[in-house]
Amino acid sequence: MTAASTARAKDPECEVTVFTEDEDVAYSPCAIPWGIEGKSKWTDIVMHTPDFYEKERGIKVCTKTTVESVDDAAKTVTAGGKAYAYDSLVIATGGKVFVPPIEGTNLKNVFIVRTIRDGKNIQEALKDAKNVVIGGAGVIGLELAVAFKDMGKDVTVIEMMNQVIPRIADKDMADDIQKHLEDMGIKFVMKAPIQAVNGTDKVSSVTADGKEYPCEVMIFATGVRANLDIPKALGFDVGQLNAVIVAPTLQPYKRGRLVPDIYVAGDLVQCESAVMNGATMSQLGSTAVKQGAVAGNNAVSKEKKLFGPVASPWVSFIGEKQIAGTGLSQGLASWYGVDVVEGKAKGLTRARYYPGGKELIVKVLADRTSHRIIGAQIIAGEEATGRIDWLTSAVISGTTAEDFLVRSENAYCPPTSMVKDVVISAVEDLCKNLAQ
Amino acid sequence: MTAASTARAKDPECEVTVFTEDEDVAYSPCAIPWGIEGKSKWTDIVMHTPDFYEKERGIKVCTKTTVESVDDAAKTVTAGGKAYAYDSLVIATGGKVFVPPIEGTNLKNVFIVRTIRDGKNIQEALKDAKNVVIGGAGVIGLELAVAFKDMGKDVTVIEMMNQVIPRIADKDMADDIQKHLEDMGIKFVMKAPIQAVNGTDKVSSVTADGKEYPCEVMIFATGVRANLDIPKALGFDVGQLNAVIVAPTLQPYKRGRLVPDIYVAGDLVQCESAVMNGATMSQLGSTAVKQGAVAGNNAVSKEKKLFGPVASPWVSFIGEKQIAGTGLSQGLASWYGVDVVEGKAKGLTRARYYPGGKELIVKVLADRTSHRIIGAQIIAGEEATGRIDWLTSAVISGTTAEDFLVRSENAYCPPTSMVKDVVISAVEDLCKNLAQ
Repeated sequence: MTAASTARAKDPECEVTVFTEDEDVAYSPCAIPWGIEGKSKWTDIVMHTPDFYEKERGIKVCTKTTVESVDDAAKTVTAGGKAYAYDSLVIATGGKVFVPPIEGTNLKNVFIVRTIRDGKNIQEALKDAKNVVIGGAGVIGLELAVAFKDMGKDVTVIEMMNQVIPRIADKDMADDIQKHLEDMGIKFVMKAPIQAVNGTDKVSSVTADGKEYPCEVMIFATGVRANLDIPKALGFDVGQLNAVIVAPTLQPYKRGRLVPDIYVAGDLVQCESAVMNGATMSQLGSTAVKQGAVAGNNAVSKEKKLFGPVASPWVSFIGEKQIAGTGLSQGLASWYGVDVVEGKAKGLTRARYYPGGKELIVKVLADRTSHRIIGAQIIAGEEATGRIDWLTSAVISGTTAEDFLVRSENAYCPPTSMVKDVVISAVEDLCKNLAQ
Repeated sequence: MTAASTARAKDPECEVTVFTEDEDVAYSPCAIPWGIEGKSKWTDIVMHTPDFYEKERGIKVCTKTTVESVDDAAKTVTAGGKAYAYDSLVIATGGKVFVPPIEGTNLKNVFIVRTIRDGKNIQEALKDAKNVVIGGAGVIGLELAVAFKDMGKDVTVIEMMNQVIPRIADKDMADDIQKHLEDMGIKFVMKAPIQAVNGTDKVSSVTADGKEYPCEVMIFATGVRANLDIPKALGFDVGQLNAVIVAPTLQPYKRGRLVPDIYVAGDLVQCESAVMNGATMSQLGSTAVKQGAVAGNNAVSKEKKLFGPVASPWVSFIGEKQIAGTGLSQGLASWYGVDVVEGKAKGLTRARYYPGGKELIVKVLADRTSHRIIGAQIIAGEEATGRIDWLTSAVISGTTAEDFLVRSENAYCPPTSMVKDVVISAVEDLCKNLAQ
């Protein structure tokens, strides 16, 4: 919808048509945990209705409509049995939740979390449930765990890896969050691959690592894979990370040749890392919106916009804690073969003597060779987001830890920060460790 | 004290002696408004006592002691009538509150705000006061106005300029804050130079722009000038902004020659701007602490550290609003003769549908010639600090508005941000205005 609205704003004359299998448009899937819990209303989560787009923006939205095929030579899309001609095509078919190939995943009350419809179905199923199992301890899994706990459910999270938020958070930071959730009464089963979902009609238990965990509702929050149906049918080049390779203009390639008049945006795109030479995935709402604006512009304008490489800052609100990260974690750095040096500091979000200050933990990572800051993670009771965006700009601009100390400054007043921000203290610790 | 503690940490063998006219050390003058109001305790505001420094860090602290003279040839300091030899000297004598040269400023219950003693005296005097006049609508003046209002006083702020927070905030942002304070019942008298403080023994009224304002307590929050007593006696070069010119090592100059073994830190230093060629003042607690660490290191170590040019990010908590800024305001830019283009956006600190989001206004300024982002200001109900630190790094690294849009990313989750952060929207508006 960002691509559609951007194209419309840029060219008031063009015809814009959107096809979606979904019944809703223009909502944030990130909001679903709070929708289920009732903190946010379903109607509020939807920014605009198809009717609004039609009447206010002259954008035709065809909901519950599958795109059956695309002919990029004839420049037509076939959807709902009808062929539509196009001058420019934006493919924003997103991702699919990965569900492990095991028994029982089709049982009743086994869910994935992708659409508002999923959210509403989960909400309905929870009414008669006491025990819920969540498969996957990524941020979505943990946000759901808190929502269900707030609703009075007995919650067990089952995770294949030895830490929560694997891949993008380091173990020390992840363990802090896991402990916080355990203190709230959420149970964790770690290093346990899910082997089966059991039940006759409905789910009644989940088997993981040989043990059985009873539940009336089971959620797979096991990560997202690029939805390659259309790109593969068109023969687009797919990269090492199983996602569509794109130029900075977000145009795909076909056997190494740039495809004209087609743009790709969202969870199915393989991005370039802003930190290290190489590919990376950035399946974030913020990334999708940014790409949507570039794709929508380029679909109608000769003045092409470029989509840059990504550091992919992320933040999540889990219980009473915000956890945020940017650039490479230890795990992501190891994929690039990079030797990492860490720095870490603890402090408060306000001056020590000003009431209401919350704990603030900052961790920064540098590449041992270049001393460049390549990543950072924050856990805080408040005010993590701006700080991680600050560190993101250091990561993107290739700042070394030592230069960051000379050239960075932090705003200070007792009710909103310490005189030396914890971000600076963490980089000081990093410089000390780099010097050893 | 940062210089002293840094020197001690770097060299466990050296003798460190601190002289101060004050009775307290190691506290944040920025905390005084909240100390007066009782939100923070006086004992909490003081980080460590002289006794702590002596026993725990082996630093000798001579309180209530005036440094009468320095002999930089013989390398001695005379304080409290006694001569002390030094190998290295750090001059951190800070600033003096500027009080206009008018009648009556010596009357009882007329105060400046610099030390904890000032704060305690104001607190005592307020007990019998109903009407308070504050001279100066800078951040300290406004923070005090809110503190006094919270204490039930009738508060009038008198300001010479046509806006609050002159110099570092733009008028549109300042007017929002002034309106917020007027809604709280604080009165403002603008464009009114203070002409006299009236009374026989105690203050009874203040005359400004020909009118009389009754009060039992009067505060001068009229800005800080560099305390040049010692630097002038030593013949150090003083710059265009009436502060001590220093090298990146924080060493002063004497008729153009670098002075050995002396370092200057704090409100008396003239800084280099990180935004434009030229001098700037950065009389902030965060700057002083950063300089203190560099001066303390350089005083004992052959591995000199450097103090970089400054963008001087600042933040203040005024009523229910945080206001923050960095780099150049319109006013500061005009001092450099720079033609400024603005961008501005309004939004929320959380997703629109997530409860508790607060208004977030972001303004960014660029130089019309280079398109570099040269400054920014934020008003927000929460989470301004990290965002202004983020924009500070853009200002310091000389990022253009257009490049910021391609290469910046923001972390997103509904409880802590919008999917496209208001910072990004403001820079989009800036790019639109630059293109016109």
